[in-house]
Amino acid sequence: MTSSERSPSPPSSSGLLIVFEGVDGSGKSTQIRRLSGRLDKRSLPHLFTKEPGGTPLGIRLREILLDPALAASPLAQLFLFLSDRTQHREEVLRPALDRGLIVLSDRLSEATMAYQAFGAGLSRELVATLNKVALDGLRPDLTILLDLPVEALEERLSARAEGRTRFEGLGRDYFERVRRGYLDIARVHTDRTLLLDATLSPDLLEERIAEELLRRFPGRFGP
Amino acid sequence: MTSSERSPSPPSSSGLLIVFEGVDGSGKSTQIRRLSGRLDKRSLPHLFTKEPGGTPLGIRLREILLDPALAASPLAQLFLFLSDRTQHREEVLRPALDRGLIVLSDRLSEATMAYQAFGAGLSRELVATLNKVALDGLRPDLTILLDLPVEALEERLSARAEGRTRFEGLGRDYFERVRRGYLDIARVHTDRTLLLDATLSPDLLEERIAEELLRRFPGRFGP
Repeated sequence: MTSSERSPSPPSSSGLLIVFEGVDGSGKSTQIRRLSGRLDKRSLPHLFTKEPGGTPLGIRLREILLDPALAASPLAQLFLFLSDRTQHREEVLRPALDRGLIVLSDRLSEATMAYQAFGAGLSRELVATLNKVALDGLRPDLTILLDLPVEALEERLSARAEGRTRFEGLGRDYFERVRRGYLDIARVHTDRTLLLDATLSPDLLEERIAEELLRRFPGRFGP
Repeated sequence: MTSSERSPSPPSSSGLLIVFEGVDGSGKSTQIRRLSGRLDKRSLPHLFTKEPGGTPLGIRLREILLDPALAASPLAQLFLFLSDRTQHREEVLRPALDRGLIVLSDRLSEATMAYQAFGAGLSRELVATLNKVALDGLRPDLTILLDLPVEALEERLSARAEGRTRFEGLGRDYFERVRRGYLDIARVHTDRTLLLDATLSPDLLEERIAEELLRRFPGRFGP
């Protein structure tokens, strides 16, 4: 459930969960930082958080997920992401939303569907079911998906040596499937997804995001 | 599925999965060591393993599960146990059983049902479903449950300072529920469970286990 559904206070004073999704290199961090700066200027209380790694438990799990020596299988990884998500919801997201904060999260459940189901080939039904268990009814008020074509991703990752290695290790097909996954999710949830072309300039993307937030949540972001 | 179901080789040359279950202090380690000694004497190839912690990933997850500062919630813990179990099945259990080994595992899925569902109060249906996902059809050929009444457990744990703290922290009711959970599972799976009174002497328990293995798997443990 969203904070507005469970809180007795009116929507304008309840929390708002805004999730940024997209592949590494799609510009999520830049846009989150810019939005955070805008909220700061207007003194709108907000919290930045991320998955995996938004709690002390999550930080440990993130290290494990990034350690190739542990060779966690796709299903073992899925359960780690779900553990991180559960703790993140209970320890960070729910309390912050209950306090009325605007929460900006770098990734949430849709990344798991895109990467672990579409990308790594786990059952979509299983991932959808377990995402629901981990989120316990919580859902984003808006998901901002920064969509990056695989050619552009390859170009951006190639600028960094470790990015190039990662791209080649997982393969173009893998990233095509992840992208298709993200687009598929955006199509299903058009009502609460803002789909943006991540190849646009950071300034343009920042403007589009600000406009959309004002349009959707005028009580929160209006003058 | 058991190794005998998936291997084309005859049962006597396929693996055997023997799981020891019971609360900490029930004497599992002692009995596993004794059985392992017996198998060594007869040159029967076997592998000792455990959950959580039977893989490099599992060792890291075990540390996390034992770290009270991380305060993993019951559901977050459940997902960690499932990640450990998935990796354990894929990396250790299946390969060992496929090679025809006798595998002695200190705990498997029934501990999760007893502790996380009966003990910590998570949905039994959820735990049963997710255990099946993690095990992917693998199941023990025999589970040896060392049942310890809570009074005896309290006495044994009190001998160690940290045991006393743990018992008092979780409370008598918690351990009563865990015990009831284990007994409940044993009742459902009478065909593949050996229920033993853990207050019997180690010698007597060792004999009972050896007899049962001979009775159930004469081709494996017979003369």
